[in-house]
Formats: sequence, C-alpha cells, structure tokens
Amino acid sequence: MYLSVDCIVFKVFCLLIFKMPIFAGHRTKCIWFLIPFSSFGQSLFLLDSRKRLKGVLMDVLWLTEEDVSAHLTMDDAISAVEKAFLDHGRGQTQMPPKSYLYFSKPEGDLRTMPAFLEGQDLAGVKIVNVHPKNPEIGLPTVMALLVLNSPKTGAPIAVMGATFLTSMRTGAAGAVAARYLARPESKVVGLVGAGVQARTQLLGLSRIFEIERVIVADRSIESAKAFAEYAKTFLDCEYQTTAGAKDACDCDILVTTTPARAPVVVKEWVKPGTHINAIGADAKGKQELESALTGSAVVVVDDMAQAVHSGEVNVPISQGVLRPEEIYAQIGEILVGKKPGRTGGANGIGGEEVTIFDSTGLGIQDVATGTVVYRRAMDAGKGIHLGFL
Amino acid sequence: MYLSVDCIVFKVFCLLIFKMPIFAGHRTKCIWFLIPFSSFGQSLFLLDSRKRLKGVLMDVLWLTEEDVSAHLTMDDAISAVEKAFLDHGRGQTQMPPKSYLYFSKPEGDLRTMPAFLEGQDLAGVKIVNVHPKNPEIGLPTVMALLVLNSPKTGAPIAVMGATFLTSMRTGAAGAVAARYLARPESKVVGLVGAGVQARTQLLGLSRIFEIERVIVADRSIESAKAFAEYAKTFLDCEYQTTAGAKDACDCDILVTTTPARAPVVVKEWVKPGTHINAIGADAKGKQELESALTGSAVVVVDDMAQAVHSGEVNVPISQGVLRPEEIYAQIGEILVGKKPGRTGGANGIGGEEVTIFDSTGLGIQDVATGTVVYRRAMDAGKGIHLGFL
Repeated sequence: MYLSVDCIVFKVFCLLIFKMPIFAGHRTKCIWFLIPFSSFGQSLFLLDSRKRLKGVLMDVLWLTEEDVSAHLTMDDAISAVEKAFLDHGRGQTQMPPKSYLYFSKPEGDLRTMPAFLEGQDLAGVKIVNVHPKNPEIGLPTVMALLVLNSPKTGAPIAVMGATFLTSMRTGAAGAVAARYLARPESKVVGLVGAGVQARTQLLGLSRIFEIERVIVADRSIESAKAFAEYAKTFLDCEYQTTAGAKDACDCDILVTTTPARAPVVVKEWVKPGTHINAIGADAKGKQELESALTGSAVVVVDDMAQAVHSGEVNVPISQGVLRPEEIYAQIGEILVGKKPGRTGGANGIGGEEVTIFDSTGLGIQDVATGTVVYRRAMDAGKGIHLGFL
Repeated sequence: MYLSVDCIVFKVFCLLIFKMPIFAGHRTKCIWFLIPFSSFGQSLFLLDSRKRLKGVLMDVLWLTEEDVSAHLTMDDAISAVEKAFLDHGRGQTQMPPKSYLYFSKPEGDLRTMPAFLEGQDLAGVKIVNVHPKNPEIGLPTVMALLVLNSPKTGAPIAVMGATFLTSMRTGAAGAVAARYLARPESKVVGLVGAGVQARTQLLGLSRIFEIERVIVADRSIESAKAFAEYAKTFLDCEYQTTAGAKDACDCDILVTTTPARAPVVVKEWVKPGTHINAIGADAKGKQELESALTGSAVVVVDDMAQAVHSGEVNVPISQGVLRPEEIYAQIGEILVGKKPGRTGGANGIGGEEVTIFDSTGLGIQDVATGTVVYRRAMDAGKGIHLGFL
C-alpha cells in the first residue's frame, strides 16, 4: 500500500515539474532534475533510500539493528526503563511468564516475552534466542526481535532488531537500580566479566554517577584490557585491569556479568556499603555470587516470579539460604515509594549494608525502550515502511 | 545490507549500459532505457518493486498478507497441518500455553503462540490479536503476524502477515479431522455460521470429500446467500441457504463457526453418524454445541490442554457433563494409529456414532503452514528481503 501511495505522490510531483515554464523545451534537464528525488536517484547517489509515510493503514515500520543503534541513547533507555519499573511498582503492567522452546541440535532456546504497560498504553512481544554455539558459525549467541503492537487495535506497528536494545535496557536497569540502592557518592565501579553486557552496564552507571575509577576483572586479562580501551571512548577516568574478581570488589558498585554456574564473588571480598548489580544469572542453576553473600545482603529483584525462577536468587533459594519472603523488594516498589531505598539513615537501607539488585530482564523494559526507538526513528524518517494488510 | 548490495549492482549495470556503443552520443535515450530497471522506474510503472537477494547474512523475508495468499493453497495447508498433527501425535512438538495480554480501552487481547516441530526442525511464534471493536474503525477484528525462526541458529528467517494463513490452517485442520472421523462417503455438508472461517472450512472439506450439497445456515439469511454465491467460485454443487441452524444439521458433516456463548446446535437435531467440526469456541465460556451433545459424542480435540481450557469442551467439562478422561483422543493420536478413527467396523468408531472435532488452533499448525508459504515465496522470488544484522 505504501508503494502505491508513494508512487502516486511522485507521479504528481513529476507532472508538476514537467509543466514548469523553466523546463519548457528542456526535457533532458528536467529528467536530470527529477532523478535525485526518485528512489532510483537516492540509491544511485548513496542517499538513504529508506522510505516513510505517516498515517498509512496497517503500515509496519522495520528497523534494523543499525537503525536501533542510531536512535537509542542510554539516557533514553534509562528514562524508559525507570518509567517501566514505576508502572510495574504501581501494578500497571501485564507480563506473562517467558515461554521457552528448547532446541537440541545444536543446543539453544527461544524465549518469547509479551508485555503490556497499561499506564503508558504500550504493548509488544520480544522473541530472543540463546544459541551458545552460534559464534562457531560466525553468528551472535543472542539475537532478539521486538514486535510492538498497538493496544488500541492489536495491530503490529513496528518490528525491530533488538539485540543491542536488550543490552541497553539491561544497562539502564542496572543504572536505575544503582540510583536507588548505591551510595550517592559512589566513585569506584568494579566489573566482573568484561563482555558486551559489561559495556552497557558501565555506560548506564556513568550517566548517574561521577565515576573516578573502574576496576575491570576478566579471566582473560586481554579481554579486560580490550574492555578498558573501549570504555575510554565513553568514560574518561582511571582504569585498572585484572584477572582476579577479588580485586574488582574494592569498589562502591560491583557489577557481575558472567555466564557463571558457580559463584565468582565470595562474601568476604565485598566491603560494607557496596551495591552489587547481579546481571549474569538468567536461568535455573546459574549463580554469580556466593549464596552466603546473597543470603546476608538486602536483595532487590526486578520481578519476583522471574527472579525466583531464574535470577541470581534461584540457587540460594533452592539451597534454603534465602527465603523468597526475605527478598526486600521489587525495584518498582522502591521507585514508587512503597519501600525506601538506600538513604544512609534510619528509614531506609543503611550506609553499611550490602545491596544486591538481581536483574533477570523484563519484557516491559523491552517494550518501553523499543517504543522510544520507534518514535525517534519515525521522527527522523528512518526505517522501512512495510505493507501489512 | 541488502540495499547497499542492490545499489552497487545497479551502479555497475548503469556503467556497463553507459559504455555500450549503441548508446554512444545518446545520453538521453540511455537514461530512458535505464529508468525501468531502477526502483524509481518500477514504482513509476507500477511494476513489482519487491526485492530479493539470497545468501545475505541474517536476511529476514517479509511477506504481506497478499504474498501469503498468493503462495498458499488449501492442499498445501492440509498437507502441512496433517504432518504437524502427526508430529504432535508422536510427541515431537513443543507448544507452551498461549500467553495473553488483555486490553480494556477498547476491549481486546493479544495472544502469543510459540511452537517447535522437532521432527521437521521448524520453529516460530504467532502473535495474534482479537479486538471486537476494530471493524468500527475499518480494521479487521483479528490480525496475525507470524515470525519463523531457525531452530539451528535461533535467528528470525521470515515475518509474515498471518491472518489469511490462520483461517487456512484452521480449514485444513477441519479437513484432516473429517478425513479420519467422518464417514468416507459423506456428501452433504451443513454450515452453521457463514463468515470467513466457514469459507476455509468448506474449502478444506471440498479437497477431501465429493460434496454434492451444502446447507448454509446463518442468523442473517443475506450472509448465508452471500456465502453460497462466494462458495460457488471454488465448489460447484447444490447450495441451500437458511436462517435456522436446525436445517443445517440434515447433513453428513456439520461445521460450526460462530462466536456463540450459548449453544446453537442441540443434540436431537444431529443424525447418527454425523461428524461435527466445532471451530468457533476459542475462549473460556464459549460453546456452540449443547452440552448433552458433546457429552454423548465421541470427542476428539487438537490439543488436550488447550481444549480443556478454551475449546468447545470447556463448558461441558465445567458443568460436569463431560470428564476430560472421556475425551476419546487428540487428533494426532488417531493419525499415528494410537487410537482408531471411524472405520465403521468393530475396531474403531462405529458408523452410527456422532463424532466431534474440537479445534482450538495450534501454534504448530501456523509454523508448519507458514513454512510452506516461506518456501514457496522464496522459490518464486517474492517478498521483501530485509537486513537484520
């Protein structure tokens, strides 16, 4: 449908130009003049040949990973995720449990995450895989696709590559959690794990805190060094690299982003008053922090059901070291004021307490962040408009 | 990625043409010659400007409803759905329960249906809405989008409009069920409800049986007549139209496709040996057949969990008229031979028994049928290839 409307508009434009007195008797010039305005000309001149037209019935916007990267800033992601957590805290979200399909040749899974933010009237479904052997054939382990739907009509309005978006909304969640749970004067960030997730975690924290020093720990010291080099492009501060997770614990905010199935951080390494963003654990049996650490800290989760099932707390709970009712809050409850965050005083979490944010990743984060991208891309005239009906 | 390759190919093509001796000194002619080959020309001349390029990393094929309609025959759908039911009967499918998001302004819902056919190595997710008030603003009540994913890599490989496909795979399910449950010599089909679903139900049956007469019943006799007129385009036989559901029961195969919440067919109307495809009920509280009819018939469901929750059997079960263990089989069990179908003899369902197929619609039907469409469209060079990574 888009193409035919576009075509008619262009034809009318052509006819008007052909009739202009300035071109009378100069047909050739006329054609040369028209070419740059056509999609032919746009591809010929390497201009952006993507198309856009607002208000077409059942038009779906396609955004590639590249489009998404170009229209998503961490500040936007933080703001979107914070609003999503607020809605969650107010009970104004719908988020059925993630559905899993399990593959065996090769091993992998596909997760489907529908979500509806009632207050903001945003809905959609993220479909994301985890195929650990993909890198062997040159593909990413994780690839995500986000479909946004209109709650008013149910129609799909956008489909976008959501791998980068997933990483950004996870970084944003860590930043939002740290804003409410870390000591405000936090200056030193410790990272255990120096992969893609660590990048967006640090980027998120850098938008909230005045970071003076970052300690990057990775089993591969080369990875740690490469991370530090990359991180300097967005955060100018002192970097220390190490192969030992213990060294990274000498910090105010600790971020763990490993795929560990056995603890990589033990309780005695962690200083009083530290805030920990535990990002890595995303499936039953996964754990990054020693159970004794989780059992003794103030634990905040993103979503109780998901965290108990597959978050950092799943192992301590299965071991009986932590009871679900001992979990302090869902982050949304702190944002809406149902539970106090870290105030350093008598009302909230004390300055000496260790806090842990257990991030499992919520569909509402994806839908909220994806909607920002969709709006920015629409405003910029980016993406491909596809006919649907 | 696709666009830039396309652009380079077109530029090389232009350069070659410009160098051809025949055009020496005829620049203007040269441009006119080139235009039809450009996307500018294609839209100007209303040619199909859809693009395609095989072998691009992470290329996702976009198919509109129109593309899907053009590449899906009922025979293909029947074959795909039959294979899907076979896999289901062998226990080689994964189909987590449908997830629902519920909207209230206006009322509607969004259903997410992931499915994996292990034997055929096909996976995907259908996202489908039901917004009863959509027709007031000129939109369909139901709109579906199907995402196909590679089980090997998890990557999305196609996204397609799946509203027509949903109707076709439902018609195919009715046809497959009737093949195993109706008397082979069935000649008269009764339809209660004359909407879009009835069309594909009749189309499906017409591929399996030698139909001599169709009795179309709809509360609106005009709808029944319009249906008969339309049906004549694909099935040449005698048509009888009526406003009374009772009249339609004078048949060998009865198909109910209404959105009824109270029974529209009562037990005493139904003749011995009739097979009934109960298509309409798709949510808790919905029912088309009198509970006494369902309670006394041989009931076959597509999927036990879905049917008990939201199929035709949900109301009789909640009333205690039917116990889940009284359900004769899942259709897949009959296809693989675990349970006999209607043989008219001592081993299977007798010739005088009434059979009911309770169709709730399975994600495996969508994925199997969508894959056929994807392959046909790829072979025909149709659809838009979109860069993903």
